[in-house]
Amino acid sequence: MRPYGFSELLRDFDARKPRGLARAISVAEAGQGRELIGKLFSRTGRAITIGLTGPPGVGKSTLSSALVRKVRSLGKTVGVISVDPSSPFSHGALLGDRIRLTEHFTDEGVFIRSMASRGHLGGVAGATADAVSLMDAFGLDVVLIETVGVGQSEIEIAELAHTTLVALQPGSGDSIQVLKAGIMEIADIFVVNKADHPMSHQLRREIRGMMEMLDFSGWVPTLVTTQALAGEGIDELWSAIEQHVAYLNETGEIKTKRREAFTHQVRQLALGRLQQRLERELHHRLPEGADPYAAADQVLLDFGNPIPGELEIEEAIRPRATVKGLT
Amino acid sequence: MRPYGFSELLRDFDARKPRGLARAISVAEAGQGRELIGKLFSRTGRAITIGLTGPPGVGKSTLSSALVRKVRSLGKTVGVISVDPSSPFSHGALLGDRIRLTEHFTDEGVFIRSMASRGHLGGVAGATADAVSLMDAFGLDVVLIETVGVGQSEIEIAELAHTTLVALQPGSGDSIQVLKAGIMEIADIFVVNKADHPMSHQLRREIRGMMEMLDFSGWVPTLVTTQALAGEGIDELWSAIEQHVAYLNETGEIKTKRREAFTHQVRQLALGRLQQRLERELHHRLPEGADPYAAADQVLLDFGNPIPGELEIEEAIRPRATVKGLT
Repeated sequence: MRPYGFSELLRDFDARKPRGLARAISVAEAGQGRELIGKLFSRTGRAITIGLTGPPGVGKSTLSSALVRKVRSLGKTVGVISVDPSSPFSHGALLGDRIRLTEHFTDEGVFIRSMASRGHLGGVAGATADAVSLMDAFGLDVVLIETVGVGQSEIEIAELAHTTLVALQPGSGDSIQVLKAGIMEIADIFVVNKADHPMSHQLRREIRGMMEMLDFSGWVPTLVTTQALAGEGIDELWSAIEQHVAYLNETGEIKTKRREAFTHQVRQLALGRLQQRLERELHHRLPEGADPYAAADQVLLDFGNPIPGELEIEEAIRPRATVKGLT
Repeated sequence: MRPYGFSELLRDFDARKPRGLARAISVAEAGQGRELIGKLFSRTGRAITIGLTGPPGVGKSTLSSALVRKVRSLGKTVGVISVDPSSPFSHGALLGDRIRLTEHFTDEGVFIRSMASRGHLGGVAGATADAVSLMDAFGLDVVLIETVGVGQSEIEIAELAHTTLVALQPGSGDSIQVLKAGIMEIADIFVVNKADHPMSHQLRREIRGMMEMLDFSGWVPTLVTTQALAGEGIDELWSAIEQHVAYLNETGEIKTKRREAFTHQVRQLALGRLQQRLERELHHRLPEGADPYAAADQVLLDFGNPIPGELEIEEAIRPRATVKGLT
């Protein structure tokens, strides 16, 4: 059997064969995305990228599945990236969730991929960004990134996606927490799923109440009610997404969004490489010092960094001034 | 009112006034721990540090509370650090959990502190390590670090703690996942809580079955059954902790554990500072490049790093070789 190499991969990718995309994402996931992305990045910028996050149990996979059905009914192609949160305790539940997407497994216009977010800083998280770029470059019209709102993943997704959906369910007491945690800032559209729940009305009222307390300079988050399992509210949700996309394009904010996503990717890649170097340092030589701070100074010196901005750091860490403030 | 400054803080700390410890941890949490830790680190190394992790709902706070009661009954003092996982969706539940510790709020021998793990890499996570050091230096006999098993926090806690308890509950299907995710490697003691559950026996059998499949070169994880709410099994749990501590001391493994915790702290501090510098770079100048990888190269160059080990990195990222392997 002839080996499947880089040129075969590119040929399949160019021919829009799913195998080409699948392999390309695997390469990125293995931390080897550099050459591929270098070749293909100029083809990106066409897809609508949607992030979907929310607490466990809110019905994200059902929502995803319903959105995929809607997008397909419009004749558009769609890629779904399910990001596993980095918990060793939740794999089972998520795999269960994923099964709900199986109805789309045989549809050539739907490409589904799940990725772990556990592990290396910038590593697999960076691979998610690469996967978005690859799906976009491949020519998929819509890229939907879905993650459970646990860990940092929901913030990352908001940085990658142009339109962020925050799904909430009635009766879970989520809403109050949402405001507290500042997730308000990442939501372009709130989705109240399980609309048949008796507390659904209250949750909607709470979200509206919170929005009234805030000043929005640009886009005001939309509130959509769905019952994803029955397919209800999905047309409205899609229409809200289209309105947000139109808003981004009309105001030119789409450029800011693209710039943010690009910066986010650069940050993840740079951090990943810095961390690699740090691990090598720590592996080659046990850190020494009277205390962890002194040892960290030593490691950073050994890093070959004269630490620009040292003065600034020194100022920031001088506790005397701050402690005085803590009366 | 006279300002409460660094010298007042140290005086209170030396006099073992809880206010001194509380302020010291606040200083660390504000990212200003350097001078404090520099002064106090030589006093550390006396406390027994215990990590407690497990999935949401397993009864960690009830277990913590029962352990605190046990430790107090032995005349020892104890510090509890509750690490909030970094999810905007779970604050409510955790605050609820915390309430279960209130019975100890008026006990001078118990010091309870909750810390957020959300946010800055190395920032608040580093502060958790500082808090452990400060409680140890303060003279508390036992330091218990409790976190929900979500995100990376449970791995971090295993790196900081000398004895790690992994709590599981019957009937949740956790056990199989535990092995998958390699959490087996962090558990020194498995705690099957809610022992009155009909599936409790099966969970114990599954854990034992998994342990039989593995080779342990040193400590073989203990399996303890509790019903924390009724206070059952807590004596056995404490005795298992004491056995593990004795094992660490007798074999000298305690030195390895201390070294690992130290390295972990150094890593977090160094990463935090590298990240600070990176953010400054990204803030001062928009990353430029044909694609995110090229832009990251540029940022790392601007970082003032000639990137030692560049060849190694270049080798690692050359996709051709690896893609061939993916036939």
